[in-house]
Amino acid sequence: MTGQREDQEYYVSKNRLETLVDGIFAFAMTLLVLGINPPRPQETLATTVLPDMIASLVPQVFLFIVSFLVLALFWLDHHRQFHFVHRVDTALLWINMLLLISIVFVPFSTDLAGDYPVITDAVLLFHANMFIVGLLFAVQWCHICRHDHLCEPALDEAIKHHGFRRSLIVPAIAVIGGALSFINPPLSLMMYLVLPFSTGLLHRLPLP
Amino acid sequence: MTGQREDQEYYVSKNRLETLVDGIFAFAMTLLVLGINPPRPQETLATTVLPDMIASLVPQVFLFIVSFLVLALFWLDHHRQFHFVHRVDTALLWINMLLLISIVFVPFSTDLAGDYPVITDAVLLFHANMFIVGLLFAVQWCHICRHDHLCEPALDEAIKHHGFRRSLIVPAIAVIGGALSFINPPLSLMMYLVLPFSTGLLHRLPLP
Amino acid sequence: MTGQREDQEYYVSKNRLETLVDGIFAFAMTLLVLGINPPRPQETLATTVLPDMIASLVPQVFLFIVSFLVLALFWLDHHRQFHFVHRVDTALLWINMLLLISIVFVPFSTDLAGDYPVITDAVLLFHANMFIVGLLFAVQWCHICRHDHLCEPALDEAIKHHGFRRSLIVPAIAVIGGALSFINPPLSLMMYLVLPFSTGLLHRLPLP
Amino acid sequence: MTGQREDQEYYVSKNRLETLVDGIFAFAMTLLVLGINPPRPQETLATTVLPDMIASLVPQVFLFIVSFLVLALFWLDHHRQFHFVHRVDTALLWINMLLLISIVFVPFSTDLAGDYPVITDAVLLFHANMFIVGLLFAVQWCHICRHDHLCEPALDEAIKHHGFRRSLIVPAIAVIGGALSFINPPLSLMMYLVLPFSTGLLHRLPLP
Repeated sequence: MTGQREDQEYYVSKNRLETLVDGIFAFAMTLLVLGINPPRPQETLATTVLPDMIASLVPQVFLFIVSFLVLALFWLDHHRQFHFVHRVDTALLWINMLLLISIVFVPFSTDLAGDYPVITDAVLLFHANMFIVGLLFAVQWCHICRHDHLCEPALDEAIKHHGFRRSLIVPAIAVIGGALSFINPPLSLMMYLVLPFSTGLLHRLPLP
Repeated sequence: MTGQREDQEYYVSKNRLETLVDGIFAFAMTLLVLGINPPRPQETLATTVLPDMIASLVPQVFLFIVSFLVLALFWLDHHRQFHFVHRVDTALLWINMLLLISIVFVPFSTDLAGDYPVITDAVLLFHANMFIVGLLFAVQWCHICRHDHLCEPALDEAIKHHGFRRSLIVPAIAVIGGALSFINPPLSLMMYLVLPFSTGLLHRLPLP
Repeated sequence: MTGQREDQEYYVSKNRLETLVDGIFAFAMTLLVLGINPPRPQETLATTVLPDMIASLVPQVFLFIVSFLVLALFWLDHHRQFHFVHRVDTALLWINMLLLISIVFVPFSTDLAGDYPVITDAVLLFHANMFIVGLLFAVQWCHICRHDHLCEPALDEAIKHHGFRRSLIVPAIAVIGGALSFINPPLSLMMYLVLPFSTGLLHRLPLP
Repeated sequence: MTGQREDQEYYVSKNRLETLVDGIFAFAMTLLVLGINPPRPQETLATTVLPDMIASLVPQVFLFIVSFLVLALFWLDHHRQFHFVHRVDTALLWINMLLLISIVFVPFSTDLAGDYPVITDAVLLFHANMFIVGLLFAVQWCHICRHDHLCEPALDEAIKHHGFRRSLIVPAIAVIGGALSFINPPLSLMMYLVLPFSTGLLHRLPLP
């Protein structure tokens, strides 16, 4: 009896958690598009006004693409970390839920930063959001590394170190971006474009 | 022939029902973010006005986080109850559908309570919503306990009692919150923050 | 080679189609809640105005629940029909896609009928939508019955007849509702509440 | 050790990627319906005004159906190409992410073209979106064909050629549609209705 209850209490099916996580990622990635405000000029004016209005959407579309790629990278991080996980304990479950809250917040902060890309406060909120997501991935990885019984097979030290170094990239970029947003807000948003390259670079660095 | 039709009539695939449930939970949790109204000041005013506008979003963001965590707990409750379920009969299916209706309603009641956190009626609607969800989880658990043939292996009495006591926590908090909302509406919304601890506490209580 | 291409051409994985269908059902069911317009009175007036505003949402909430339950029944119909399906051919795929279009349209027609429940045109659009969904389910069932090689094991005649009679319930209710909407639009929307009972009733009828 | 890290680095689970892709397709297809603006006349005027307002939605509803069917075809293309894929490498992953960005953009460009179907710029954006999606499917197919070790069993030449010719249909239609949008924008949108027939036709053409 006790064994059955313990099981119920402390372990969550990895499969259903992944379904929920994938669903929320897919939805958050799709909701990003609602942040692009379609222009709605009057029909009589539309012929003359619409071309300029479409052109003025460029910063919003640009940030939409950036946010989508960053969320794709986060999804990949989740995939990579859960690749090793075999059992989900209560702590890991709640780290995931906090992660998902900050993921779901991304369409909101993207919307705001896309509407006001030159205003420090709006852009700073975006960087803060990214920092929190990145931090929670680092926390999740530390939790996985410290609780070897969740993994199968057990992680070797090289993977632990590599994963930890990788998990510091996003928080580092967010901090630099946040500092840069006081000088040049739009430029600070472009920082995230180095992400796809940074992981490739990291992989080529020699392990300590 | 009869056996085949009976099968078709009374039992639903647990797998597809879980996919639907997980999908609806994922969307409802993500839709919560649409309840936070992004400020849209004119661009000329934005530099001076936006910081205050962002600061004024704090109650909405707070309730967004509370609702997300409560939905996460509900998802976990569903997961925990369905862990034991092996077959889904018609009654269980429709209890699930009523549950999902009240889950889908959460983004709406959160939106309203987040916009008017000091007005009793708006906050009361939120508590009523949570009460109904909690009640339906209690009903679902009773149905599962009374129809042992749905489970595999059969539930032992300790798990039944424990699950039943657990299912009373949310309705109890919602009732207390509802009463409190006549005195201090914003405070009553914070009641749900005790939820993550309450389940831990319950687990440490001795079984009768 | 030909065998491989034929396979690629004519058969779609039942699993991935079900994932898409379940995802679209889950999303359409959740989107229904966006049709309930949260009242947004000014904060100074909110205390006095909000209770009446919330009360005036009752018809919208009622129709939200009706639509949700009807979509749940449609989901169940899909589940029931696909229970027998083993392979998905091109025709079945495109019947599904037409079905999904009319399912995705439900949040729109529900929104309109919920906003104007006393106007025949709005309510008629709702009935027309339900009629089309119901009709497509009947078409799908006929296609499944006529192409026995899609099923495993083959369907017996009793199941075919029973399924066909069942698939006529929703179109029949939609036609009656449509006629009734010229006399009493709000009443005609309540027709769908007989659905859960009608299937139970049908099941008790003797087979011909 | 190296083997384990390599595995982590270069290959993504095909299953979880398909779940994400199916989820995003399901949401994008459902979000299309939000592009149809429900008319909101005052209640006193509604009886006289609403019928005309509903009639004026016809172009939006028409484009909603076209976009839905095109997305369904894209989903089918993805299904067809991934039918052969056995392992997902980093390049394939990022082609997929770019594909998903352009898929998620479809509800936006549909909304705009549905609101202004007679204005070249709005319609041109729609064609450009379709062109990019089609192009990325062609790129994905080329990548799959060139990296035979991703497939199991290996693709034969006939399938490669057939798939490549098929992947050129959408870009070709988008280019013709784009050119036509300078002459007759609404007509150019109807070009996509030939798609379901074109694939059938292609299949009947003799292989070179």
